[in-house]
Order: sequence, then C-alpha cells, then structure tokens
Amino acid sequence: MLKPDSLLVVGSIAFDDLEMPSGSFKDVLGGAATYSSIAASLLAPARLVGVVGNDFAESTIEMLRARGIDTTGVERAEGKTFRWHGRYADDLMSRTSLDTQLNVFASFKPKIPALYRTSPFVLLGNIHPELQIEVLDQVERPKLIMADTMNFWISGEPKALEKVLKRVDLLVINDEEARELSGIQNIRKAAADIRARGPKSLIIKRGEHGALLFDDTGVFFVPAYPLEQVVDPTGAGDTFAGGLMGYLARHCETSPYALRRGMFYASALASFCVEDIGSKRVERVTKADLSARIEAFAALVDYGGKLAFVD
Amino acid sequence: MLKPDSLLVVGSIAFDDLEMPSGSFKDVLGGAATYSSIAASLLAPARLVGVVGNDFAESTIEMLRARGIDTTGVERAEGKTFRWHGRYADDLMSRTSLDTQLNVFASFKPKIPALYRTSPFVLLGNIHPELQIEVLDQVERPKLIMADTMNFWISGEPKALEKVLKRVDLLVINDEEARELSGIQNIRKAAADIRARGPKSLIIKRGEHGALLFDDTGVFFVPAYPLEQVVDPTGAGDTFAGGLMGYLARHCETSPYALRRGMFYASALASFCVEDIGSKRVERVTKADLSARIEAFAALVDYGGKLAFVD
Repeated sequence: MLKPDSLLVVGSIAFDDLEMPSGSFKDVLGGAATYSSIAASLLAPARLVGVVGNDFAESTIEMLRARGIDTTGVERAEGKTFRWHGRYADDLMSRTSLDTQLNVFASFKPKIPALYRTSPFVLLGNIHPELQIEVLDQVERPKLIMADTMNFWISGEPKALEKVLKRVDLLVINDEEARELSGIQNIRKAAADIRARGPKSLIIKRGEHGALLFDDTGVFFVPAYPLEQVVDPTGAGDTFAGGLMGYLARHCETSPYALRRGMFYASALASFCVEDIGSKRVERVTKADLSARIEAFAALVDYGGKLAFVD
Repeated sequence: MLKPDSLLVVGSIAFDDLEMPSGSFKDVLGGAATYSSIAASLLAPARLVGVVGNDFAESTIEMLRARGIDTTGVERAEGKTFRWHGRYADDLMSRTSLDTQLNVFASFKPKIPALYRTSPFVLLGNIHPELQIEVLDQVERPKLIMADTMNFWISGEPKALEKVLKRVDLLVINDEEARELSGIQNIRKAAADIRARGPKSLIIKRGEHGALLFDDTGVFFVPAYPLEQVVDPTGAGDTFAGGLMGYLARHCETSPYALRRGMFYASALASFCVEDIGSKRVERVTKADLSARIEAFAALVDYGGKLAFVD
C-alpha cells in the first residue's frame, strides 16, 4: 500500500469522572482529541495538539506514543488537566454534566509544531471556533479539513463558527447540533442549509441510529453496529471522527467513495468504543479485531448486490 | 420473469380521522390490511380478507380491484366500518388515539375463500392472535407466513400470541413491541429471545431510523429514506410489511438475500406512504416511481463494494 498520510488532531485532552449504571469511574482518560487520535492511530500516523496539566501522568503520554501518535504538540501547562464529571441515565440515552473544570484548557492556544504544518489531513476537535481558525492559519493547504462543534458554540459564537464553516471541507456533528445550527427540523433540509454555508461534505451522526453523509453525490447512510451490550457511550463521536480521518489518511484519499467507506471504519471503531469505559476498548483493538468487525459491517448491509427492479 | 405468487392479506380495513399539523382529515381510507394490500399490489397479486360496514363505498372496493387486488374475501357486514381517530404531535414523532370504534370489526371472524387457501405467501396483519391462528388453520402449507402484532396483544393475550409465534416464519414488529414482547431492553438480545420462541426471521422496525432483520445468517440493516418532508406516518409500517411480502411473492422467493432485498422495497414503499395523507401517495406510485426510489436507495448504501481492510 501507499505510505499513509499524516493526520493532525487538535482538541481537548481530559480526565472524566463517569457515573454509569454499571458503577462510578474516576480519572478516566478522556477528551475529544484523545479519543480521536487513539482511534486514528490504528490506521495512520496521528499528530496530537492539546494541553495537559501537572497531574497528567507521563506514562499516559508514553501510551499514546507507543501507539505511534506524535505527542510533540502536547503542551504541559502549570495547573490541572481539563476535568469533566457526568452522570448517565440507566438506558445510557442521555447524560447530565455535573461539573466541568476547564483548568489548563481555559487558556489553551493551539501551537502547531513546524513539522505538523504540512499534515495533509486535519481534524479540528470541538474547541472554540476562534481557536479552530487559529489552527487553520498555521497549516499549509491540507487535502482535507474536518471540524466538529457543539451547541455551546453554535449559540454562543455564531460569527466565529460561520468563518470556520467557510474554511472546512467536512463538518461532523450530531442531529441535534445540525438542527440548532440550521434552525431547521428536517435533517435533509438542515443538511442543505449547512452545506450552503461552507462544508462541501457534512456528516450527521445519530448515535445508535447510525450516520448520514451529505455531499455533491447525494446522501449516504451507515448504520451503527447493533451491539449486545453498551457500557459507556463517552467518546464514541470523537472515535468516529478519528476513525474516519484515520481511514482517509491511511489511503491518502478524499473521494466520495473513500468517505463512504471511511464511515464504516468510523462506525466500527465507535462500536468498539462503547463496549468498555472510556477509551479502554479502543486501546485494545487490534487490526484483526477491526478487520473482523468491518466484515461484520459488510454483512450487515449485504443485500447480494442486485436491487434493480426486474419486470 | 416467473409468474408471481399470490399473497393473502388478512387484517383491518378502516376509516381514519387524522389530526395532523398540516390540518384535519376525515374519513381517510385506513386499516393495516388496506395499506398492506395496496403496497403489495404494485408487485404481486394480493388477496384481501377483512370486513367493512354499510358505510364503505363500493367505489373504494372498485379502486382496490382496479389495482389487481382480489376482494372476494372482503365481507360486508351490517353496521359501520372500523374507525380510528388520532392526533399527531407537531414533529409527527408521537400520536394520541382520541377514539377507536371497532364497529363491524368487533365480531370479525376471518373466512378464507376456497381459492385463497393455497396462497403461497400469507400476511397476518395486527389482529387478535386467536384470529391469526384461525387464518392459519384455514390455509395450506404456505411458503412463508408473516405476522404483525402490537402491545395490546402482547400484554393482553400472551398465550395466544405465543401460539402464533410458533407458527409464523417471519415476525415484523417495531422496537417498542420487541422490547415488550421479550422484556429485554437491548435490541439484539430481544431479537434472540423472540426468535427462540418461533419465528426464524424477525424484522424490527425503527420508523425513521430504518429496520433490522435477524435470521440464521446474522443481522441486516436497511435505512429509512431521508425525506425532505413527512406529511403523515399513518400506515407506514403496514405499507412496509405489504411491500416486503409483495416483493417476495413477486419473485417467488423466501431466501435470506430475498428478504434483505425485499426490505429495500418495503422501505421504499413506506417512504412514499408518509409523503401524503393516508394511502394516497402509495396509490399513485407507478413502477417507474418505485424503480427510481429503489435506485436512490441503492445509492444511499453504495460504498463502492470494497470494504476489506487493506494492509
């Protein structure tokens, strides 16, 4: 195969305290950039930019490095690492934020190391849109820029976000965010509105109901994998984004079909993510595990290849 | 092509009064068997068994007949036709039953005409499980028996329903019903439980989130078609069932791949159904319309046919 492209991942690195139906878990490694880079690293060389505090163990950075993730861009600042404390409902369908401590993340200014600036693939995790723009100002003509965002920025920073939309190729958000960003309830119309504002490609995630891709070729749908047991949905969306971008970087591709196929890898990695607390399961996924799940996905949508109406 | 098999459809024929966000609609032709037979008739010869009252216009029966539906089995009884009055929420995601008048349907005993008894495909709409059994007692070794049911029978007639489960090949229900029938929240485990009780194949419908098929070959997923506008979800599930069985009857097939492909036709016809009030849109669907939507469905899930992990 070709030498894979590199993927720049910028975003939060955190500790999560999770109250799950299955128990309470403290100091779980979290943050969007963490999940995304761990997932992507199974497929392509990832370069991580984020900030951690004094309380972040060097051994955790070593773990990321051992996965082939370049951590030169992980800054260590005076203070504590970003912390989130959340509680999930019994059916895991909703969650409540009990506490959010930005800590060193509050004054985070992404500094892209010189070597990272020519990364062909760029994943902008869910951070302040002004910071996403600062990242884009530091990189040189990537092949594909993907961004995530959230309701907090959609309602609070609409102008900055509008600038981000104009500069990204692919936006990956969930259905609730798509509705809020567009002010439109119907998903298909919401997608058309958002795409008209910049991103040529838009992926709308629907959790256990899969994800839709909207681009110039039409609409594409990938299901979520139906699992026997879901343990922790935290980070599934970030794992999806990392898996997708990792697939594209691995194959040095940005074509519509590559995006469609990448969504299976994204969905497969997200399906591993929810099988254990935090990123534990994704950390353990081998290439053989991933291949097996991709085969299961292919079977899940295999209709024998003949749909034409025969008369 | 082969001469299509015939499909026997047994169930309710009704008038619905619908209060939709788009307005109020009175005396809308409804009932599960109506929707199922209208959808199926686009693909295969359907034979309808149900009951109507004095108030049911002969011209409506003529309309069904003009579609190739055999209405010999439609009994006209003294009294009024089954009536349902419902109101939908603004987002069409939920509905409230305001009134249900069983009328002639209250004493409905399905009598299968002699000519219908060898129908190779049998669709048992959502009626009392004892009546579903009475139908099965009147037919001769069909190739495939499909049944629908609902929460009312799951909680109220568990023993009779258990007997139905033992005698059907394919059960088609929604996710809420699957959870109630099995007492299991996880859809995959719920499916295993239900299949162990009889039906070799189980389809779980999830409305706008598509449908899952569980059988001996594994799991298969078909999405719902993402529409720009949904007008009325009434009868979409029955249209799905009719479209699926119509496809199988048309191709004289019961193989796992045929079921998987049939689900696209089911989902395509259901996507037409919700585009207008009642069965109006499905009544207007031409073979060309259906072919075009099937092509759109094929595009919706087309990933270029290569998912294998390449290293």
